[in-house]
Amino acid sequence: MMNFASDYTEGCHPKILEALSKTNLEQTTGYGTDIYTESAKDKIRSIIGRKEADIFFLTGGTQTNQTVIDSMLKMYEGVVSVQTGHVNVHEAGAIEFTGHKVLALPAHEGKMDAEELDKYVAGFYADSDHEHMVFPGMVYISHPTEFGTLYTKTELKAISEVCGKWKLPLFLDGARLGYGLMSKDTDVTIKDIAELTDVFYIGGTKVGALCGEAVVFPKGNSPKHFVTMIKEHGALLAKGRLNGIQFDTLFTDDLYFNIAKNAIERAEELKKIFAERNYKFFMNSPTNQQFIIMENSKLLKLDEEEVIYSRWEPYDEAHMVVRFCTSWATTTEQIEKLAEVLDRL
Amino acid sequence: MMNFASDYTEGCHPKILEALSKTNLEQTTGYGTDIYTESAKDKIRSIIGRKEADIFFLTGGTQTNQTVIDSMLKMYEGVVSVQTGHVNVHEAGAIEFTGHKVLALPAHEGKMDAEELDKYVAGFYADSDHEHMVFPGMVYISHPTEFGTLYTKTELKAISEVCGKWKLPLFLDGARLGYGLMSKDTDVTIKDIAELTDVFYIGGTKVGALCGEAVVFPKGNSPKHFVTMIKEHGALLAKGRLNGIQFDTLFTDDLYFNIAKNAIERAEELKKIFAERNYKFFMNSPTNQQFIIMENSKLLKLDEEEVIYSRWEPYDEAHMVVRFCTSWATTTEQIEKLAEVLDRL
Amino acid sequence: MMNFASDYTEGCHPKILEALSKTNLEQTTGYGTDIYTESAKDKIRSIIGRKEADIFFLTGGTQTNQTVIDSMLKMYEGVVSVQTGHVNVHEAGAIEFTGHKVLALPAHEGKMDAEELDKYVAGFYADSDHEHMVFPGMVYISHPTEFGTLYTKTELKAISEVCGKWKLPLFLDGARLGYGLMSKDTDVTIKDIAELTDVFYIGGTKVGALCGEAVVFPKGNSPKHFVTMIKEHGALLAKGRLNGIQFDTLFTDDLYFNIAKNAIERAEELKKIFAERNYKFFMNSPTNQQFIIMENSKLLKLDEEEVIYSRWEPYDEAHMVVRFCTSWATTTEQIEKLAEVLDRL
Amino acid sequence: MMNFASDYTEGCHPKILEALSKTNLEQTTGYGTDIYTESAKDKIRSIIGRKEADIFFLTGGTQTNQTVIDSMLKMYEGVVSVQTGHVNVHEAGAIEFTGHKVLALPAHEGKMDAEELDKYVAGFYADSDHEHMVFPGMVYISHPTEFGTLYTKTELKAISEVCGKWKLPLFLDGARLGYGLMSKDTDVTIKDIAELTDVFYIGGTKVGALCGEAVVFPKGNSPKHFVTMIKEHGALLAKGRLNGIQFDTLFTDDLYFNIAKNAIERAEELKKIFAERNYKFFMNSPTNQQFIIMENSKLLKLDEEEVIYSRWEPYDEAHMVVRFCTSWATTTEQIEKLAEVLDRL
Repeated sequence: MMNFASDYTEGCHPKILEALSKTNLEQTTGYGTDIYTESAKDKIRSIIGRKEADIFFLTGGTQTNQTVIDSMLKMYEGVVSVQTGHVNVHEAGAIEFTGHKVLALPAHEGKMDAEELDKYVAGFYADSDHEHMVFPGMVYISHPTEFGTLYTKTELKAISEVCGKWKLPLFLDGARLGYGLMSKDTDVTIKDIAELTDVFYIGGTKVGALCGEAVVFPKGNSPKHFVTMIKEHGALLAKGRLNGIQFDTLFTDDLYFNIAKNAIERAEELKKIFAERNYKFFMNSPTNQQFIIMENSKLLKLDEEEVIYSRWEPYDEAHMVVRFCTSWATTTEQIEKLAEVLDRL
Repeated sequence: MMNFASDYTEGCHPKILEALSKTNLEQTTGYGTDIYTESAKDKIRSIIGRKEADIFFLTGGTQTNQTVIDSMLKMYEGVVSVQTGHVNVHEAGAIEFTGHKVLALPAHEGKMDAEELDKYVAGFYADSDHEHMVFPGMVYISHPTEFGTLYTKTELKAISEVCGKWKLPLFLDGARLGYGLMSKDTDVTIKDIAELTDVFYIGGTKVGALCGEAVVFPKGNSPKHFVTMIKEHGALLAKGRLNGIQFDTLFTDDLYFNIAKNAIERAEELKKIFAERNYKFFMNSPTNQQFIIMENSKLLKLDEEEVIYSRWEPYDEAHMVVRFCTSWATTTEQIEKLAEVLDRL
Repeated sequence: MMNFASDYTEGCHPKILEALSKTNLEQTTGYGTDIYTESAKDKIRSIIGRKEADIFFLTGGTQTNQTVIDSMLKMYEGVVSVQTGHVNVHEAGAIEFTGHKVLALPAHEGKMDAEELDKYVAGFYADSDHEHMVFPGMVYISHPTEFGTLYTKTELKAISEVCGKWKLPLFLDGARLGYGLMSKDTDVTIKDIAELTDVFYIGGTKVGALCGEAVVFPKGNSPKHFVTMIKEHGALLAKGRLNGIQFDTLFTDDLYFNIAKNAIERAEELKKIFAERNYKFFMNSPTNQQFIIMENSKLLKLDEEEVIYSRWEPYDEAHMVVRFCTSWATTTEQIEKLAEVLDRL
Repeated sequence: MMNFASDYTEGCHPKILEALSKTNLEQTTGYGTDIYTESAKDKIRSIIGRKEADIFFLTGGTQTNQTVIDSMLKMYEGVVSVQTGHVNVHEAGAIEFTGHKVLALPAHEGKMDAEELDKYVAGFYADSDHEHMVFPGMVYISHPTEFGTLYTKTELKAISEVCGKWKLPLFLDGARLGYGLMSKDTDVTIKDIAELTDVFYIGGTKVGALCGEAVVFPKGNSPKHFVTMIKEHGALLAKGRLNGIQFDTLFTDDLYFNIAKNAIERAEELKKIFAERNYKFFMNSPTNQQFIIMENSKLLKLDEEEVIYSRWEPYDEAHMVVRFCTSWATTTEQIEKLAEVLDRL
């Protein structure tokens, strides 16, 4: 079995297990008040260069999006996202569950266009009837996007400026942030993100942790009583140390960045073996998710070979868009084996 | 530091870390579809003697209570609990957050009285105005309760019968189920619970796991599309194996029961050292939570000695009810050290 | 048939129908932006002596309580009410439906005790665990209460001071406000209420209107975008003039107060006929709701005589507490007829 | 002032005021249990030819959509609507407020296409990931649509069949149903609607009532405890007779249909005066809402002439789409006056 279906097919980076083992019998206080959680926060504050940042650890992506968005919106507000945004399509209505509409803009290779955002908000306020409509209350983008694409610094700045103009907090979903930061084709640093957004999260689940996402309010701007709201959403871990120790490990000796870099290098190899065999890419992704247009007949053979991938969407009658992911755990050997399989198709 | 504040002060039982390490680089599918999760389910099914049981793994107690209750209630229904029930007081309104009232009955050492439940429901339906009130839609009990007390089999049967009479599903919160099952003063088995309830959960977080609770619908009676509802509540773990492997380990070679037994034995020792020193107990608890009435002045000294416990509630002007917990990880040595501290007070 | 079951058994005061007829074919703008709504607001502002007051018209009591409370609470807050408060028992969970817990204090003849409120809030903040609990976010009282009783000015002031101390907005449910203001046993004026509360409503449905409640934020302190929140709760009337014209009429030439006075005078007559016949009162009510303890056997005869009243709650095996209401529409003749029936029992 | 901005600018049909006056001092029971409400229900049952129909009266359109949709959906389901559907754009997020996503399909002159609906639902179930997405739970259409357009019987049948195929209840928003039924260009009768939908409502607010919408479950298929759910949504009128008497009047001697016919005839006159003056229509509407493309400069002059209309949306730099409505109350004289104004522009 070769599983390229996602970037969360393995357990976690071995150093995390080491740290969990080493600290295992120490007694700590609960709910994220322990010393490892504090240490992890300090390391993240240091990396983004902001001592004032408020940081919280949640367990998964949907939970994080739901809790952050619901906590920052007023009752009559919705969150602006592109049509293909994770919160709009793949979270089982978790945002609407908390009472908020997802206000969907067109997606451009998974990305939001700053000008379209501006026009949309301007149009909303220009509408004489807007008191009967859902107010745009914050903006959600993902980086990398659900298609593996990345905002440039210029694009991110433009969105941030539009948000500033309309006083809309900007939330960046970094479920795969490590892979975005380590891409060879990006000019966006984590410090840029801390500067240009109002809240973002550093994904752990998809970048080497067993679970866990670090929510960062870079300007110390977390909502009042955010811990209580986390609890109310069912998202407060009793043994907060589980997340604390994991992030403390990930942000020691650049582990987070180094293992993300592995995924990028393997993705480059993956692209190469498909390109050499004349496969077409659905989109040009500079990160660890690669979308390839494959013939349905070949997919059946891949299945026989026990190669696992994700079926994304039908491309045409005879083809399907499929996703292959690399991760912190992918090896060159695995890519080579996949190449051999491709040769057999 | 000696920390008796809760039963989740350590990491997890070492065998869990071993299992996580051993399986770490295996690739599995996500969201609880992996083989370890399947194996854990099978072991639990076998222990409760019900092949038909539906089992799901969630991450924490509040999350589990919120998701289970919200998924089983109709919009116009509330959940009946005793006043001191965890869902009524210590979950930051997580139940009301999902739109449901907690209908509170009197607590008797943390327990619900079957007759009072029956009278309450009968009274509700007898009220000509009940269409303007919240319908009782299910019954929530905890076992052990928040005060460490236990239902007898007779009591549990009586509640179950009242529930059956009024067609109210009975939900048993087993956050500390292991400690209840291994108490020397109980005649309730896990098979009894599977028989007498409609849904219950086997707590992992407080009984040796890093996180995780096993929700059991013993009669195969889980709500349709429960996985989607878990996702909608932000409670679906991407790396479901984390929970799967933990419960697979806990239910191998009776580990869950053996480590719970340790907590009970240490609790007996704990009771003894307090009783020998003439402390009064707030309640007679046969499980791992012990509630002791202590002078405020002595508590200050305990604090100086770096003994950590939980302040429960004021008893009178000069005394406080405090809670000392043992757990799967507590050692006789720790109890002895505590005894020495008590002698110094 | 003689119907004393409630104070909303007739249509509306005839002057309201006259006003509706007179203005019927005039064209107005919708959603409460018409001139009659403006005029009604001005009249209410004048009566409470506060030009700065924000006023909105909603349609019914539960809707008003739900919309006001939900709009003023933060997500993690609940509303403090006495156990017998309407929001706690007779609104089908409309408050919890919007995500908020009703935090119930003991009721004293339907009233909240300022000292108990203070102790409760102080106890909440003193609890080291309060971040895991529902924060008290506002205080709800009804005046008259659900038992017809009234706060004295001293009592109201005391509650208002406790609210001020803890920064909790005070909300007064005035579904029957007119009857409270016109009671012979009150020292509370509408100006007092405007001074001592943060928001209150002047009930129309139970005091002579077809429907409608006037929500008053006396200090111009309505939540931002309250109209949008009303719409979101499904509570914005398209033909807002229906409420506007009604309240404009009720607050012309003291109609509201005069018709409320009628109910009080009839209630005095009602009390007299019961007292003269040695019936016991469950509570001493100075307003239009009278609670009488009657033998079950006599109730059966009352039913035969086609007298309609409300069964409140069982008093003992042989007796029931029943409610008789007078209203703006009750006549002395009706009371006299009831006396005749009582003589026949 | 000539107000064509909406179809709810006047009070109500004079016969309704007559009926309210005539019955005003009668005492009735509350919450829709009175004899007028019963009579209104019977008349509607008779008109749709279904004795088994369950009927409820609510107060306004958004409230009705919110209550019906929320009551019929399961927690994990959303409602399918076209992009321009009222629930998707002009209800301040009232649907999402209750936890449900609006799943938006393309609109074709305001209408849903049966085939697109079928493809969408088929695609949803074909997606291997659909357990992580919002399930389509019911279908919402408006007739007339927000653009005044109408479904043909064939189109309605097709949608109904797709709904049947996928077991999705079909909900028809009839806020302006009268105008649809009396259009000269329709082959859809109210009996057809009762046959082809699972629930629909007969709008009162926009067709001659002060307020009120009649929700019809034609097959006796109302959700269990629907009254409690209405109450929970804050939508239960204490003086239910207000709605009952209005609908009883509207469905006596075909009043509802006759006054709707007036709006259609006036709309024909309105179309004529615009067409004669070479204005272009944005859409060809066979009902009482007419959408006209007007030059911005002319709109300024219309404003000076105190003609009121609705600005719908910008058409291009120099033009705006505006809406003129006729109603049960519009007179030929008003249309003629408008023609004179148009001549002056």
